[in-house]
Amino acid sequence: MYRVIVQVKDLDKAPQSIKSVINLYNDLKDVQIEVVFHQSAIRSLVKDSPLENSIMDLINKGIVVVGCMNSINSLNIDSNSLISGIKIVQSGVGEVVRKQSEGWIYLSL
Amino acid sequence: MYRVIVQVKDLDKAPQSIKSVINLYNDLKDVQIEVVFHQSAIRSLVKDSPLENSIMDLINKGIVVVGCMNSINSLNIDSNSLISGIKIVQSGVGEVVRKQSEGWIYLSL
Amino acid sequence: MYRVIVQVKDLDKAPQSIKSVINLYNDLKDVQIEVVFHQSAIRSLVKDSPLENSIMDLINKGIVVVGCMNSINSLNIDSNSLISGIKIVQSGVGEVVRKQSEGWIYLSL
Repeated sequence: MYRVIVQVKDLDKAPQSIKSVINLYNDLKDVQIEVVFHQSAIRSLVKDSPLENSIMDLINKGIVVVGCMNSINSLNIDSNSLISGIKIVQSGVGEVVRKQSEGWIYLSL
Repeated sequence: MYRVIVQVKDLDKAPQSIKSVINLYNDLKDVQIEVVFHQSAIRSLVKDSPLENSIMDLINKGIVVVGCMNSINSLNIDSNSLISGIKIVQSGVGEVVRKQSEGWIYLSL
Repeated sequence: MYRVIVQVKDLDKAPQSIKSVINLYNDLKDVQIEVVFHQSAIRSLVKDSPLENSIMDLINKGIVVVGCMNSINSLNIDSNSLISGIKIVQSGVGEVVRKQSEGWIYLSL
């Protein structure tokens, strides 16, 4: 089974990045995927964002969606405004490095 | 010998990305390189694109140039309009993950 | 201890990328970090650039800051105008690949 840690940092590219994650999921089949949203892309995880349905689609497929607390604080986002079902980590880049150190394959989108 | 799987996703950065691939090729010398074009960058692989000569230069150096079928379909590109000598895969991101799982080093450009 | 090779290529994203590197440094603690600046981001390493203080902050933390000679030449930057304390390599992408081949974890920012 593949384990893939995906990094999404740019809000303007987030819709295309999510599409690529779905393509990855459909292509690899036997795969565990975690997607880390940080920098401006953290806004994708706010309730009522235009991406809310796409994010829910990821979660419903069993893909782990991660938000970076440093980015949440930096952009003054209220944690209560985040889509539920998201995993929060202190540092998105730290998460990307830790997962790789555990053998996960890295994909930057 | 190094084996490097390169990912190019943005059309506006494709010229600079190709230049970096050539720099990598010249620097590492004993290297096997595969470059996956997906998302908007897939348009780099269309015949008569401004990048056709650069793509042919990669192929002539023995660098494998890969196009993503999901991106081709998504942008309604006619497969017959693609530069010949290109390897087509169903999913560009799937290819990037598979190569890494086989020990290739990853570079995102 | 983690060893992380970071790649920064876009000048317009360099301030945010440096912030992410600092977050990574603070999060992982026991970590060795090398940050390669290439393509347009090489301009971050010029003296009196708006990023000079941020770059000095990285160096003062023991983070290795690397500049790509191919990018320096390509943008006609005078080597004497670079911030002192920087490590210069012929090819930034070559450095990223070599470090990974030595077991360093890759992060694209």
